Amino acid sequence: MRVDGDFTTARRAWNTLETNHRERLARASAITGGKVVDAADTVALLEAVIEPGDRVCIEGNNQKHADFLAKCLSQCSPERLHGLHIVQSNLALPAHLDVFERGIADRLDFCYSGPQGLRMGRLVDEGKIKLGAIHTYLELYSRYFCDLTPRVSFIAAEAADADGNLYTGANTEDTPAIVEATAFKSGILIAQVNRLVDRVPRVDVPGDWVSFVVQAPKPHYIEPIFTRDPAVISEVQILMAMMVIRGIYEEYGITRLNHGIGFDTAAIELILPTYAEDLGLKGKICQYLSVNPCPTLIPAIESGFIEGIHCAGSELGMEAYVSARSDVFFIGRDGTMRSNRIFCQLAGHYADLFIGSTLQIDLEGNSSTATLSRITGFGGAPNFGCESRGRRHASPGWLKAGREQPRPGTMPRGRKLVVQIVETFGDGMAPTFVERLDAWTLQERFGLPLPPVMVYGEDLTHIVTEEGIANLLLCETMEEREQAIRGVAGYTPVGLARDRAMVERLREKGAVRYPEDMGVDPRLATRDLLAARSIRDLVRWSGGLYDPPARFRNW
Amino acid sequence: MRVDGDFTTARRAWNTLETNHRERLARASAITGGKVVDAADTVALLEAVIEPGDRVCIEGNNQKHADFLAKCLSQCSPERLHGLHIVQSNLALPAHLDVFERGIADRLDFCYSGPQGLRMGRLVDEGKIKLGAIHTYLELYSRYFCDLTPRVSFIAAEAADADGNLYTGANTEDTPAIVEATAFKSGILIAQVNRLVDRVPRVDVPGDWVSFVVQAPKPHYIEPIFTRDPAVISEVQILMAMMVIRGIYEEYGITRLNHGIGFDTAAIELILPTYAEDLGLKGKICQYLSVNPCPTLIPAIESGFIEGIHCAGSELGMEAYVSARSDVFFIGRDGTMRSNRIFCQLAGHYADLFIGSTLQIDLEGNSSTATLSRITGFGGAPNFGCESRGRRHASPGWLKAGREQPRPGTMPRGRKLVVQIVETFGDGMAPTFVERLDAWTLQERFGLPLPPVMVYGEDLTHIVTEEGIANLLLCETMEEREQAIRGVAGYTPVGLARDRAMVERLREKGAVRYPEDMGVDPRLATRDLLAARSIRDLVRWSGGLYDPPARFRNW
Repeated sequence: MRVDGDFTTARRAWNTLETNHRERLARASAITGGKVVDAADTVALLEAVIEPGDRVCIEGNNQKHADFLAKCLSQCSPERLHGLHIVQSNLALPAHLDVFERGIADRLDFCYSGPQGLRMGRLVDEGKIKLGAIHTYLELYSRYFCDLTPRVSFIAAEAADADGNLYTGANTEDTPAIVEATAFKSGILIAQVNRLVDRVPRVDVPGDWVSFVVQAPKPHYIEPIFTRDPAVISEVQILMAMMVIRGIYEEYGITRLNHGIGFDTAAIELILPTYAEDLGLKGKICQYLSVNPCPTLIPAIESGFIEGIHCAGSELGMEAYVSARSDVFFIGRDGTMRSNRIFCQLAGHYADLFIGSTLQIDLEGNSSTATLSRITGFGGAPNFGCESRGRRHASPGWLKAGREQPRPGTMPRGRKLVVQIVETFGDGMAPTFVERLDAWTLQERFGLPLPPVMVYGEDLTHIVTEEGIANLLLCETMEEREQAIRGVAGYTPVGLARDRAMVERLREKGAVRYPEDMGVDPRLATRDLLAARSIRDLVRWSGGLYDPPARFRNW
Repeated sequence: MRVDGDFTTARRAWNTLETNHRERLARASAITGGKVVDAADTVALLEAVIEPGDRVCIEGNNQKHADFLAKCLSQCSPERLHGLHIVQSNLALPAHLDVFERGIADRLDFCYSGPQGLRMGRLVDEGKIKLGAIHTYLELYSRYFCDLTPRVSFIAAEAADADGNLYTGANTEDTPAIVEATAFKSGILIAQVNRLVDRVPRVDVPGDWVSFVVQAPKPHYIEPIFTRDPAVISEVQILMAMMVIRGIYEEYGITRLNHGIGFDTAAIELILPTYAEDLGLKGKICQYLSVNPCPTLIPAIESGFIEGIHCAGSELGMEAYVSARSDVFFIGRDGTMRSNRIFCQLAGHYADLFIGSTLQIDLEGNSSTATLSRITGFGGAPNFGCESRGRRHASPGWLKAGREQPRPGTMPRGRKLVVQIVETFGDGMAPTFVERLDAWTLQERFGLPLPPVMVYGEDLTHIVTEEGIANLLLCETMEEREQAIRGVAGYTPVGLARDRAMVERLREKGAVRYPEDMGVDPRLATRDLLAARSIRDLVRWSGGLYDPPARFRNW
């Protein structure tokens, strides 16, 4: 409307969310007089406070899940609740998809599926899920403060008091982001807790942000996804770990970094107290990590290699060890860890290096863990595994990487190191290096706007395989890049098709390096180099503080 | 050390920070029996709980300042306290530099200086400040969870209760990031508050995270830095705003964005309800913003143009208006806004567009607000004004920008739009376009590792001037980029030296566009187009809810 001096705007209500919030609470008052709701009334509560078409977030992190509330939602009546738009990070539990199967929800924005990816694909095909987009964690939480704010959120905590103050213990994870977006936009926040207490050991979420608390019939589900048994680490992985330490960490002086969660990075962690220590690298590399408390970090911590670790979440069995190492981890006054995925992701994003693994890499260096017929996602990897263009502070490794990269123009700039560590053949002897990523087929299959790439070639700086290291920063053309990748691709078809003369030239300028080029003796790559060779060794290193889940106790 | 099966590590203490924390609290017990400390005892408290060499964070946001605590620190004895390492975002108050002048602190990592930049330069010259690095906000807060965790932090809040629960009201800003890093690494957290109350209106920071509370003699300082008087907006700025709306927002369908805080972006906001509405763009552009509650947004909000705004901080005078528009802003149960710089920065980083202003742009598109002899910084701009490489969700504008950008390789990717809006001549008729940024001289002058660039040319996509728009995405070479920049640089020496034939060719492919190329009639660029032409108009639009600070009341 044009403005002609009288400033009369169409009158409208500006507090409809607040009004509606009060109406929802009023409907719930038939079920509870306070914040605490009986578990048996949960379905009734959800039917009372959720409205058709609502945006709903079910906390499902890497590890911690609001599983009871998810199950209750899937048991609601589709006549009462339908057309919900689910905005949540991880789809990991059957109930997460049951809500679509039953017609309670029909739209989805998410980050990561995993085991449910296959079934999700089917539901998309059947038109039961209208897929919005696949995000990284930080990106989805950011949209909670923009165009995807949840109207109702389910979260999981360890304990609550009658006022709704929540104690999340070591698994705070993504709760603060979900809570803040929901509570401060007149949303309904429902927490499932393992126990109700008179006074929580510490306040992780203030009670006045929380609408309802339900004590679940059993503790919320937690997945031990960061535990890697050293017994399974191979000599090939140890060789690659040696190359990473000499060819990358030492060379760039990497002190602040993020490790992926595979056996490859576990191997690096386990030879820090042996191989790296012998090289005199203690205090010079790997001092600060943004990573979950992976048990394979224990020997490096005990050896004084690692100064500080900030965690996105916790890991089952590591609670007592972490609590006893408060100089290293972030710990509350109650003595347990405070994790927080937002801050961990940010610290890793602005650090000097990310290293992780993947399933497929193409000739441009694009990589993806997406496989045919599944709709999956990449969780936090793309945020760690990308250039941090908003960074302005310098460090020696960041400046060196910046100098190595050819750039148009004259303005110097630093560069984050983004490393993929892979064996040339993966599970079932499928070659890791491919001419064409499966991501292209997935794009067609599910009508995605772009192929689902985890780490883009233009963000990647190094590829480490058992054959050697390709330094993509030193490649001046796409042809050089292709040959550097072929030059470390071993006996895969991609590797066999290398131009040997060009690879030799790339080797001369350091864009391809083999173990002997970096002073790595492959004969030393034996399991003797591992500071711990079993879960039991990790328990010993921890002085008995690490308490591995039963399935890892094989002694 | 090598491991030979016995796992004996050198015994060390692993909880030295916790032990030391208890010692500090014990020393403070001579001053207070609880958490509340008398203002008169503050210097004594600081001398008791701070130790030489500590890393100290003094909350100093864009707006809110822990000014009383900063002053008290500067009054401490340099014999007691020395060698402090200050890690804080904004250096804005004389006391922030007094601590260096007096030898209490000697190391500094920060984000932004501003008026203190000149004096800081002198202190660096004199060796009284050893400069670590200049960060963006998110980047510095990230390092709090990595290698720059504060040992002691001073924060500012509106109110506290006796248990230390804090109420920050509309100015939460950076407090949660500082608090979390400090409280969970056995740090000391001291809050200055405007008032002590029996019960806080809402809990913004849980009391069990807070060590001490001091009621300051007067309310903490807040700067109204986002208020722009529409009376000062020129017709040139209105013309540029029209070009932005037609040539960028409409063309890319920009619904989620971040606005800088200059008069240029204020002009855009003020013609949304007039020019953009006439173009039928309501509901199609500018629906979600990550920005402070700038008063010039009021007409666009009242006209129903803007759906949602998440704020990094508040703005003086906007409190009642924001509270009354809870459908648009993030509001707590107490009825006041909840701001949070971390989430606002993240939402803006992953949005489709950033637009802001600068002082200098070079021929590669690098820009900087750094000027000679001052050490300044860029606050949040580099994080908004950079490509978001961790983004994976698509939107039409992001995909279109991705298609426009030439990339090596075959993998398609989206692209964030990063726009600089500038007049060709700035204050004092200094040309905005230059062959060489002052940043190069600054680098030499202060021995910085890189020239202090705010937005890098490789992150920039568009430059808007009164002459037209350069779309750098459509430039295939650095030569084309240079000429596209010259092509909108007007009568500056850079603009006059353009290759007219090449600029004409760039115009044919849309890399340079003048008003007539995008259907913008410069004759309409009058102040009549502004939905509000004065602060008083803004007050009227707000129905009297906006209460501008006295210095903006000129009627």
